[in-house]
Amino acid sequence: MPADASPRPVLDLAADSVAITQAICDLPSVSGDETRLADLVVDALADAAHLEVIRDGDTVVARTNLGRERRVVIAGHLDTVPINGNLPTRFEVIDGERYLWGRGTVDMKGGVAVQLKLAAELAEPAYDITWMWYDHEEVSAELNGLGRLARNRPDLFTGDFAILGEPSNSRVEGGCNGNLRVELRAYGVRAHSARSWVGDNAVHKLAPALERLAAYEAATIEVDGLAYREGLNAVGVSGGIAGNVIPDEAMLHVNYRFAPSRTVAEAIEIVRDLFPEYELTVVDEAEGARPGLDADFAKRFVAAVGGPAHPKYGWTDVARFSAMGIPAVNFGPGDPLKAHADDERVATDQVLQCERALRAWLTGAA
Amino acid sequence: MPADASPRPVLDLAADSVAITQAICDLPSVSGDETRLADLVVDALADAAHLEVIRDGDTVVARTNLGRERRVVIAGHLDTVPINGNLPTRFEVIDGERYLWGRGTVDMKGGVAVQLKLAAELAEPAYDITWMWYDHEEVSAELNGLGRLARNRPDLFTGDFAILGEPSNSRVEGGCNGNLRVELRAYGVRAHSARSWVGDNAVHKLAPALERLAAYEAATIEVDGLAYREGLNAVGVSGGIAGNVIPDEAMLHVNYRFAPSRTVAEAIEIVRDLFPEYELTVVDEAEGARPGLDADFAKRFVAAVGGPAHPKYGWTDVARFSAMGIPAVNFGPGDPLKAHADDERVATDQVLQCERALRAWLTGAA
Repeated sequence: MPADASPRPVLDLAADSVAITQAICDLPSVSGDETRLADLVVDALADAAHLEVIRDGDTVVARTNLGRERRVVIAGHLDTVPINGNLPTRFEVIDGERYLWGRGTVDMKGGVAVQLKLAAELAEPAYDITWMWYDHEEVSAELNGLGRLARNRPDLFTGDFAILGEPSNSRVEGGCNGNLRVELRAYGVRAHSARSWVGDNAVHKLAPALERLAAYEAATIEVDGLAYREGLNAVGVSGGIAGNVIPDEAMLHVNYRFAPSRTVAEAIEIVRDLFPEYELTVVDEAEGARPGLDADFAKRFVAAVGGPAHPKYGWTDVARFSAMGIPAVNFGPGDPLKAHADDERVATDQVLQCERALRAWLTGAA
Repeated sequence: MPADASPRPVLDLAADSVAITQAICDLPSVSGDETRLADLVVDALADAAHLEVIRDGDTVVARTNLGRERRVVIAGHLDTVPINGNLPTRFEVIDGERYLWGRGTVDMKGGVAVQLKLAAELAEPAYDITWMWYDHEEVSAELNGLGRLARNRPDLFTGDFAILGEPSNSRVEGGCNGNLRVELRAYGVRAHSARSWVGDNAVHKLAPALERLAAYEAATIEVDGLAYREGLNAVGVSGGIAGNVIPDEAMLHVNYRFAPSRTVAEAIEIVRDLFPEYELTVVDEAEGARPGLDADFAKRFVAAVGGPAHPKYGWTDVARFSAMGIPAVNFGPGDPLKAHADDERVATDQVLQCERALRAWLTGAA
């Protein structure tokens, strides 16, 4: 039997957005394995004559070219974090609320489902729309499909406003905190632990750093009218050679989530000043994004979908749009606290509410 | 060609003890691989009519049965820690001192070589002697060949005094510290590090334990006239799930080397009292051994081989003899600081000095 004999799955974008969410969640697309889902998206949009479809690897762009005065970019990622026994999806009712449970329902196939449905449906939107569905968001920044698209096709990144469908309980969340990860290292002298005084214990030298972290009171900083709560945390610690050896090296892995009013360079200085006695290696860095909700267009969007706006804490790709001069917000169904959780689940009402609100604004009805 | 066609090696115990050291070091016997060396020992003693030879696995016992008033047990292990590019042996001269360099020269084939030579040579010692050469000393306690022998043949463990040939710079080192390893655990609540206030950071909770360890001043405790220096150290630390997750568990691996005046149970209580807020799991424990140098027989040995005696810091199998009511000391060539080192090397004069001193005492000449 030839390898391609199994029927290619079909995605029906005329279904309601909850059904579409379920269909695309049940097609696993863990980072690096997005090809089948990207194929499905391309196939599903093949009959939409109002869309120009562009593919870059496993990223799919679909845009209208109606000559509207304004252009909106609406984006979402196709990949999920690894599955942990939480597929296939199922429906659950908890305290009277109906949920779709399973990997990807929150982060962020609920948002993608709404976008796909509206992309197919809205042949005559009030604004030109550039839809972007991309790969490799849940892994290291250099693999990010949106970043690759920006390098390969910077011409596609034009617009007056961008909406990223990351989970935000179907509320508008503006901007995002920046993200810095560093490794702090202490060194000592190895020795047999029976004669520990011959050595110098590197693990013990982490005590002051851990004390400072435990006592640290993270700031809350107002940026463009939204209050961003920061966080400074150990996300890992390691050291030790054997049960009878004084360790000569110890490492503390520190994550600083900083308000978008600071740059990465400033964040590094803050961490360096806080831990001057350690060797510091930056292992990951990402600028934050100011909420941009002082822009007129953004204010109208917030009003249209039902404000007020809230700050976004997690780093998201809104920062990429922000860095390219396109004001950007997060707006998608799902509780961000359930992102990556084993009991990831989205309230189906949030998916439908997101669909209604986005349709109303994009058709000029709101 | 049949598998056994290669000639079986021969060990010449009439050679000097440095030459014997070299010969048995160049036959690798990393823990678990002692059979060839045990075979060699049995073969080399085959002509010694004054010895009864008993084999238990890769442990070889050889004893005189001369009806002497006193019996001495003299023991050494046949195995070494893994080779790290430090075989075959070679001779080196450093600052005018001649050394035999290579794995096992210090820990403890120098001591075993002296013992093998004297076992073959001393047909009429002043005391009956039970020689014991055993396997699996450098690995976990349950594999220890001396422990197995004590279970299989407790009748062999009779004597007035025991000498273990562990490296002690050819000085008498009495008793040994006890050894305790525990894992201390702190727990918290996992969360995405972008919203760290939702979680509870387990790694931060290690701060007080590390502070206490860093500030801890280990005691020096006098036992039977010798001063034992203790040590309390982190030998490992671990925690962390991913760069964006607040860890919900962190572990500190702590090693307590305690004076032989304390029991394991007391040592556990000391550690528990020092770290009351952590979950404590004992992962390894070994009683220490009092030096036993207040016994008359021991005093005469110390005088004969040239005192004074010193405390032993590392845990050794003297503790097994001590626990069976046989006072025991360490006495062997080699600097214990070079045990397990990549540049392990024994001063050849120490090997010869150990041979002379032991011969003089065992023949009643000293």
